This record gives sequence, C-alpha cells and structure tokens, in this order.
Amino acid sequence: MNAQPLLPRIQSPADVRRLSRAELKQLADELREFVLQSVSRTGGHLSSNLGTVELTVALHHVFDTPEDRLVWDVGHQTYPHKILTGRRDRMSTLRQLGGLSGFPRRDESEYDTFGTAHSSTSISAALGMALAAQQKGEKRHAVAIIGDGSMTAGMAFEALNNGGMPHAGRVPNLLVILNDNDMSISPPVGALNKYLARLLSGRFYAAAREGAKSVLKSAPTLFELARRFEEHAKGMVVPGTIFEEFGFNYVGPIDGHDLDALIPTLENLRDKPGAQFLHVVTKKGYGYKLAEADPIAYHGPGKFDPQIGLVKPATPPKTTFTQVFGQWLCDMAAADPKLVAITPAMREGSGMVEFHKRFPERYHDVGIAEQHAVTFAAGLACEGLRPVVAIYSTFLQRAYDQLIHDVALQNLPMVFALDRAGLVGADGATHAGAYDIAFVRCIPNMSLLAPADEAETRRALSTAFAHDGPVAVRYPRGSGAGTAVETGFETLPWGRGEVRRQAGGHVRGPRIAILAFGTLLYPALAAAEKLDATVANMRFIKPLDAALVEQLARTHDALVTVEEGCLMGGAGSAVLEALQAAGLQTPVLTLGLPDQFIEHGDPALLLAACGLDSAGIEAAIQKRFCASAPSHLRPVANG
Amino acid sequence: MNAQPLLPRIQSPADVRRLSRAELKQLADELREFVLQSVSRTGGHLSSNLGTVELTVALHHVFDTPEDRLVWDVGHQTYPHKILTGRRDRMSTLRQLGGLSGFPRRDESEYDTFGTAHSSTSISAALGMALAAQQKGEKRHAVAIIGDGSMTAGMAFEALNNGGMPHAGRVPNLLVILNDNDMSISPPVGALNKYLARLLSGRFYAAAREGAKSVLKSAPTLFELARRFEEHAKGMVVPGTIFEEFGFNYVGPIDGHDLDALIPTLENLRDKPGAQFLHVVTKKGYGYKLAEADPIAYHGPGKFDPQIGLVKPATPPKTTFTQVFGQWLCDMAAADPKLVAITPAMREGSGMVEFHKRFPERYHDVGIAEQHAVTFAAGLACEGLRPVVAIYSTFLQRAYDQLIHDVALQNLPMVFALDRAGLVGADGATHAGAYDIAFVRCIPNMSLLAPADEAETRRALSTAFAHDGPVAVRYPRGSGAGTAVETGFETLPWGRGEVRRQAGGHVRGPRIAILAFGTLLYPALAAAEKLDATVANMRFIKPLDAALVEQLARTHDALVTVEEGCLMGGAGSAVLEALQAAGLQTPVLTLGLPDQFIEHGDPALLLAACGLDSAGIEAAIQKRFCASAPSHLRPVANG
Repeated sequence: MNAQPLLPRIQSPADVRRLSRAELKQLADELREFVLQSVSRTGGHLSSNLGTVELTVALHHVFDTPEDRLVWDVGHQTYPHKILTGRRDRMSTLRQLGGLSGFPRRDESEYDTFGTAHSSTSISAALGMALAAQQKGEKRHAVAIIGDGSMTAGMAFEALNNGGMPHAGRVPNLLVILNDNDMSISPPVGALNKYLARLLSGRFYAAAREGAKSVLKSAPTLFELARRFEEHAKGMVVPGTIFEEFGFNYVGPIDGHDLDALIPTLENLRDKPGAQFLHVVTKKGYGYKLAEADPIAYHGPGKFDPQIGLVKPATPPKTTFTQVFGQWLCDMAAADPKLVAITPAMREGSGMVEFHKRFPERYHDVGIAEQHAVTFAAGLACEGLRPVVAIYSTFLQRAYDQLIHDVALQNLPMVFALDRAGLVGADGATHAGAYDIAFVRCIPNMSLLAPADEAETRRALSTAFAHDGPVAVRYPRGSGAGTAVETGFETLPWGRGEVRRQAGGHVRGPRIAILAFGTLLYPALAAAEKLDATVANMRFIKPLDAALVEQLARTHDALVTVEEGCLMGGAGSAVLEALQAAGLQTPVLTLGLPDQFIEHGDPALLLAACGLDSAGIEAAIQKRFCASAPSHLRPVANG
Repeated sequence: MNAQPLLPRIQSPADVRRLSRAELKQLADELREFVLQSVSRTGGHLSSNLGTVELTVALHHVFDTPEDRLVWDVGHQTYPHKILTGRRDRMSTLRQLGGLSGFPRRDESEYDTFGTAHSSTSISAALGMALAAQQKGEKRHAVAIIGDGSMTAGMAFEALNNGGMPHAGRVPNLLVILNDNDMSISPPVGALNKYLARLLSGRFYAAAREGAKSVLKSAPTLFELARRFEEHAKGMVVPGTIFEEFGFNYVGPIDGHDLDALIPTLENLRDKPGAQFLHVVTKKGYGYKLAEADPIAYHGPGKFDPQIGLVKPATPPKTTFTQVFGQWLCDMAAADPKLVAITPAMREGSGMVEFHKRFPERYHDVGIAEQHAVTFAAGLACEGLRPVVAIYSTFLQRAYDQLIHDVALQNLPMVFALDRAGLVGADGATHAGAYDIAFVRCIPNMSLLAPADEAETRRALSTAFAHDGPVAVRYPRGSGAGTAVETGFETLPWGRGEVRRQAGGHVRGPRIAILAFGTLLYPALAAAEKLDATVANMRFIKPLDAALVEQLARTHDALVTVEEGCLMGGAGSAVLEALQAAGLQTPVLTLGLPDQFIEHGDPALLLAACGLDSAGIEAAIQKRFCASAPSHLRPVANG
C-alpha cells in the first residue's frame, strides 16, 4: 500500500483493464477504503458494497464494459461500480437531491445498463439483453449479478427457467453470477439458502482455495463413474446442482474476494457460449471489522466515524411509525393468540425484531417472496388465524394480483401494514410508496386507512384487526407529529373521519374545507390556521366518509384534498367521485404527488417541492381560491 | 361396466371412501363419461378434467375431505371434484349466471378450501393451511395439486422454498402433488419442463409401471453406495431432485390414471410427517380420443357432440379483437424487424399462433411467468428492440411492480396488448379485466388507450408501437362493433379523442355529452340517439384529451363517462380530475363497473346488469339528469 495510489487515476473501466494482477489487488484495497470513507460521510449502503469490491474490479477488468452489459440485482452494492465508472468525484452527493442515486440508473451512466432497486429483476433483464444481442448478431456479453437473498424471489426462478433454454435454436450467452453472502437484509431463510450452504460446505473449502483452475474441473471420479454407469444401466437421471437442472453450466463456489480465483474464472466463462452460472462467495462488510461483525447494522447506516463505528445518538430519536407498528404487533399478539405475522424478508425494516423474539412460532419470514407472502397469509386466514402482513407500500406492488385474486375476492380478514407509504427520501423513485391508494382502493372488498399520526396509527391497526375483511393501513417512513401512543386497543369508528378544525364564522374570503388523508393532516392544519379553513382528518380512504364529504361540501365554498400519494386515482379522486355521486358540484383542489417519478433526496425538501408542506398547501389554496375574488369559486357557467 | 351405476349414489366423498378398489375404478369410468357428457352440453374446460378423474377419486378416497384440505391449482380441472362433492346435479349450470363456477370457490362448497383460477397459488395457500393446523394442534392434512405449467411461475418456487423449511421448529405436513401432463394452455416451455421430462424418461417406465410399492424405494444401490462414499470422503453434496433440494420428500413419478398406484402411494404419503412431493403423470383429455389427440383444441371448447367432436361453425364467427391483434402483430413484424413479441404461456389466447409460425426467432413464450415476461421485455427494449407484450388485463396484475419499476420508471418504449379488458363472461370474477385503467393510469410515463372497435384497435396498436414510451392498449374479449380493419399502419393523433355524434341544436332537455372510453362507445351512441346527446370517442385514457373534456364541459349541461372498467379511479375519475384542474364544475355521471366482484355468466347479460348496455346508459342518464327538470343540473348551492 506504499505504492503510488491507483484509484485517482481510474477514469473509466478501460483504465482497470490495463492494470496488472498486482495492481488490481492494490486498486481493490484503495477502492474498499474509498467506499468506507465515502459512505461514512454520506450515509448509504455499506456492508454490501464492501462485499463486492473485488467482484467489481474483476468484472470491469475481464469484460468490455459498457459494451458488455452488467446488470446488478437490487443495485445497492454498486458503489464500487460507480466509483470505477467515472463517478468517483460525485460520491459525496450520494442519495442527495440532485446527486448520485444509490442505485444504478440508465440516465446516470452508460455503465448502468438497467435500473434496479427492487430485487430479483437482473436475470430477466440480462436475458433480454442477451437475446437482443443474439437477434442483432452482436457479440456483447450480458452478465447478471444477483445475491442469494434475491434468488429466493420467484421471479429469479422464472428467469432461470427461461434462460437455460434455447431461444430461436440457441441458448443465449448469459452469465449469472450468484453473489452468495448468506444474507438478505433480514437473516436468510428458506430451503434455497440451506441448499447453498450445503453446496458451500461440500465444495468451497475443498476446492475453491486451490484456485480457479481446479474448481473448473472439480467433478470427483468415482462419483462420475457411478453416475455414468447408473445412467446407462437404468436410463436414470442423476441431477447436478439445481442450476444445472435449469440448463446452466454451474461453476463454483469460488472466493469472491480472491482476484486470483475471480479473474481466470470470469475469463474462462466469458469465452464459453450458452448459459453460465458462477457461484461466488463474498462476505458482507468485508475488510471493515465492525461491519463484518454486524452486517445488518451496517447494511444502511447514516453518517459515522469509521474509527469509532456506529454510536447510539445522545438524544433518543423520535418514535417511528415502524416502531408504533412493532409495539402494537407485540401487544395484540399477546392479547390474541390468533394473530400471526408475515414478512417478506424485512424483519428489521418493518419493526418485527421484538415480535420475532417474543412470538417465534407466530412469526413467518418467507424470504424475498411477496407473492407467496400474501397468498400464504391468505391460507392462514382461511383457517381462522388473523394474519398481519407487514410490507412496504412499494413492495405490495409485487403481490398485487395475490391481493386481488387470493385476498380481496375471498374477502379474507387480513391486515396489511403498509410502511413507507409516500415519499421515502434517499432511496428515491424506485421505493416510493406513491401508488398504493390508487391501486388498493379500486379493489372490491378492500379497505384502506391513512392514520394521521402515531397515536392514530395504533388505533388504525386495531381497527383493521377487528374488521372482518381485508384492510390495509398505510403510514410513512420515519416519524410524524409525535403524538403519544396509548397502550390499549382503542378502535376508530369504522369509515368515519373527524373535523379537527372548524373555520371561524366570519371568514372574509371563501369558506374552505381541507380534507386531509394521513400525516399531511399536520401541515394542512398549519395552513388552515393562516387561511382560517376547516380541516377534516379523513382517516379512511376506503370506505370514504361520504357523509362527511357531503356535509363539508354543503357548508363550504370549496374543498381541498391533501394526501401523500399520487393524484391520479388517489384519495382526492375518491372525494370527486363521492361529490358527483351526491350530485354536488363544489369546486375541489386536489393536492398530492404529481404524475411523475420523484427523485431521491431529503423527504422534507421533496414534499416541499411537491407543494405538500404547510406553505405549499397554503399557497396552492390561495392561488386557486383566494387570490382573485370569490367569482372564481362559482361554477363555470355552462354553454 | 354392466354393474349397477355407482356415480348416482355418490352424494359426498364419504361415499367414495366406502368403495372397494374395483368399485373405485368403475366410479372413475362413470365420472369420466359424466364429465364428457356434461361439458359437451355446457362448454367449459375438458382436457384438464378428463386428466384428473382418477386423481380426484383417489384423493377423496384417501383423504378425509373436507377436514383435510385440497387446494387445486388453477382450478379449471375441478369438475370431477365438484361432481363428487355434491354438485353433480348442478353441473348443467356450469359457468352460467347464477350457476356453478368453473373454478373452486369457498362460497360454493366447504370442499372448495381455496378459490383459485390464476395459476401457481396452491402451494402457498396449502402451506398456510398446514401451518395453521400445526399452530392450532389440528391433525388435518393440506394438499396442493399443481400442474407442471403452473410450476413455472416463480410463486410456486417461492412457496417450495418456504415450504420445505421448518416453521417454529417443524416442517409442516404439506403434500404437494405435481400433476405433470406436459401442458399448460400453450405448449410447454422452459428448463423445468425439460427437467421433468428427464425425470420421466429415467424413472417412469422403469419404475412406475411396477406399482407404487417399488416406486417408494426406487433408489438404486450402486448409486446410493457411491453417493454415500463420496459424501463421506469429500463432504460433498450429491443432489437429489430439485424438489428434494427444496426440502421435500420426492416420490414418483407414478401413473396418475392408475388407481392401484395412486391409492397406496397417497396412503403412504398421508401418514408421513413433513413436506411431501408426489410426481404424478396424467394425460390431458385421457379417455376421449379426440381430446387426447388435440388437448389444446379441447382445452376449453364450447358445446359439441361427443360422438362427432368439434366442428367448424357453418358461418365463420366474427373477427375477434384477439385476431385483430394477431394480424397486426404479423403485419408490423414484417414491416419492422425490431418488433419482438412476448407471451406468458398464452400463445393461443392472445392470438399469436400465426406470429409464432412466421417469426419464430422473434417469438418468446416465457412460460407462466408474468413478472419475468415484463422485465425480460424491458431488457430487450433497452437494446433497441421493440417488444410487444401480449397479456390479459387480469394477468398484468401479476407483473404490476415490473410495470412500474422496470418499464415505466425507465420510460422504455414497449407495447402492452391487454386482451380481456373488462368483463370476461364464463370465467368470472377471477379473470375480470376490471382494474387495469385504475392501476395503469396512476403510473407516471404510462399511456393507456381504449380503442372503440376493431378498426381502431389496429390503429391504437400502431399508435402505441410508434410512441417513444410504454403504452398499454386495452380491448375486450370477443368481438365488437365489427368495423372493417384496414391493412396499413395508420395511427391515431396522440392524446386526441373525437366527437362521434353532435347533439342537435335545439334540445329540449339538458345538453348531455357522453364521453365513451373503449367499446362501450357503441351502446353509448345508441343511447345518445334516444337522448339526442353528444358522444365523444375518447380513445385515450392517458394522456386524457383534457382539451376535449373542457370543450364538451363548456358546451354542455352535463357530462357522462362510460367505460368497461372499475369506477373507482377509472377513466371517469380521470375526467373528474381534469374538470377540477380546469376549474370547471360541470355535473358528471360516471358509468362503469361497480365496486364489487362480478360473477360469471353471459357477458352481455352481465354488462346489462351493470347498466352498461344502451338501455342502461340511457336510463341512468334519464334518471340523473332528465327525469325531474333541469333544476337538478344546477350545481347544488353551497352553504
């Protein structure tokens, strides 16, 4: 490490391709140190990126990027890739408004061939690219790099099932690299993981340490003989690894931190036609002892001092909605033995660590498998249990058909705890919980609640749990107004909103009623103070409190709806529908997320940019209803 | 077969359990004949039901139904099950309004433990039931019966991955029966299918014919010895079948038409704890030569004479929207080499047989794998190809996250041909394409067209193909107004509707404008004749022709929207949103599908029941706007 630093001289992967093996090792060390320093200053994903340093160096050394296509599954492990592909200087802007994305993005770099963030899409996308190359007669390679956690999602199997087969007479040239680090965000679960562990225990230490060459022809002789004899004698199939059963040439496992194993193996695979599968073993947090010891804690840390590591903040952080859910879940489970909780591999993020500890027999982490999670829960519900499915709003998109076809159609009593509803901040557009109002409320039998604060979230969950049908409760990332949460199981009156502020009797301007859905109640109340508007906390998106809507419409000159969700088809549209059904033509201003993907950045800034802080709400109302005389409020004369 | 008939005496599965082996065989023969006669009179699914006769008899004989839970994947093969579970007499009402469903339904029978129709849900649901039994200390069994086609969907793998693992310390008692008939609706594709074929060729004829007993201990000795030796010597894993890798005890394959194999094997498996996997081989159409010879033609026939079989109708049927799509696809593919077409195992239903024949290198059937289909297509689009994904509206629900996260977020130019949009008739609520307008239009960058007839469908597809972004084109099952389809690639002006009928100048009642989205344009036009209303063919749901909406609002007393899709969040709501954005308070009546699941039955009757035929549209408009004087049209005074 006393040599001249190499990393500052790497402007693009072409520079990586020129380096000697010894230099590559030095580069990897510098890259790891850069990642650590950089993430410690910006926050972001750490463990996964420390684990992919050598793999990234090797891939850009062996493959002719960007001509060859690398598709990184999930993509939060692409910081080394970003650093080597001309974005080193912008790493300080990571996940900030206007800065680098925490995920690959096609519009950020030509080296980002496919935008990822949700898991398990990489094999499908890379297969598409491989087939396109085949069809166009282009020689480029397509490589998917996918973690063992992502392999548990069915979509990855769909792609394997399709990828190992001939298309137009040829199995396309596709390399799938399984980055096996024995960890999704939550601890690993499922048969596949156990299977991979068995592959490792059997082969890794016996073979991989001997270097790539021996790995590539590691089939033991006696076994091979017996296998051939049996096949011949009985016409019987002796299976290889499951990846071979899917038509892939399986190689591995090899040590993903050993460039002397990685590079010759990748070179070998690069030159083979057809579907190749490389099993690479890496360690999350590799090279940073604290992260190696606790990769979950260092999965996505905030800023920290690398010398010290993560420290508990001096002042305890505000209670998050996630914590409110976690506490309610434990309390309700203690009160009702029928409660069971399901998570698709998001134990930590969904606030279920304590529940898992206290009620292990009623805790089901099904892996990254949202489709299965929902239908599995439906099966539990059929037998009289009361499943609570904790799932981020954005990930419920992955179980949409199951929600319609298996849950709502059968009207099964189930609770969906939709965390991260609305904007999510640093993770950006891929993770935004922007659409759930629109896509849930159109489903018959579904109910949907949007509590306004922490206290009401607990009540909403109790209300949902008590309801004889499927109910989703949406709440945002982070903390809210900070209302004190009671300990009991008080419920909300079903389908009823409440008026939280009544406009004064003698308003000079138009009489405005703001209908707030969810946590934006609080900026709405602040705006209403300035405008002397009425404010209703609607609480229920479906069933909508149509009586309250009607009453407010009849007693005000205009309505304003506010929600942290997409405007198209959202709660505001529900209000419009209700008014028309009642034959009311009150003017309505709908405020919510615009019809565009919202970038990553500080959530408060983003909400303000969308006009969803109190100032924005006030300004929008002023502009539409107050600026230029009450005549604007009169319905436009027809004809 | 000269014995007393048995079937008429079967009132419930308890009666099946009392029969001797010889009687069971007779029952199976009678059951097969009943299925054939019954389906020939009602239409419905045939091949799959002829294939499951013996399996159904054996399951109800061995298991204590309904205490033991049978979950039939897809469920269109459950006619024998329905007949044996007290619904024989109602088979004549199959798939008709008020009659038996073509799928299992929890509200139809206690023997239907889980409603199915979309594929690949059964293992998840049965696992939930198995775990619930475990948690409640109940001894009942849970059995999933799943076809080899359904096994290609990732959801089935998610469930296998979860099912073979301990839950609360125990692997739940779950039996998965793979009903391997080498056929989904389209011909089989994918590595898994090839793998199953290899399992068959190796084991089936060698072992299964010898009967169940030998199958249950079929491991060859030399192989076993070699395996143990190797494992011991190298610590190496010698894999079993992939199902064993997932933690299941694999048994089979056995002949699914041989009760002497089925019954003892099922009895044996019933008494084993943990996760069991039985590989059964059946033949679709078994016992009816015509169906055996062409199981695809007899997959879901209409009425026919079993003596003669299917005959070509004397008068050629009207051109369907599916055919319009299929023809356009071929024509456009001939014109543009960049076009590639993707289907998730629905070659026939989506009208792609001809395309497959003419352009095999650009045809991709990815199996029942909607998630993969969409992201795979996105990968193709990234490389400059122009994918056309043909997918039923109801099945796009299974790729919703991929549509948002992989397609729309990256704004990739792709066409989604959404067949079966709206009500689908005999298949009922599970297959209704009722929600796509709501769930697609809320996605940024997505466009959505609803052509009004055959000619416009072709133009809409050409328009979508020419657009530089993702576009969905929705069209219903069956045929429409019958407009002549041209041969070229004329496009529609982007985002523009058209006025198809102008109200007369001197209307006595209120001036009404009907805004029709899609094929309901024609009943809307008929209703408009009675009412002398203006009618616009909106064509675009997104981008909505807001200028036309505004113009019609300014020149009419009231607007009426008509669509074959859910009202909540639908095209009508888009019109409401546009009016409010323009500050217009024109009264609007929105007509569409109500917020409830619509049963199976004749589509015309169902549409009429929803008030979406011309009489219903007219009546709704009369009631809302015309019946009691124009005063109703005035906006309700506020305050």
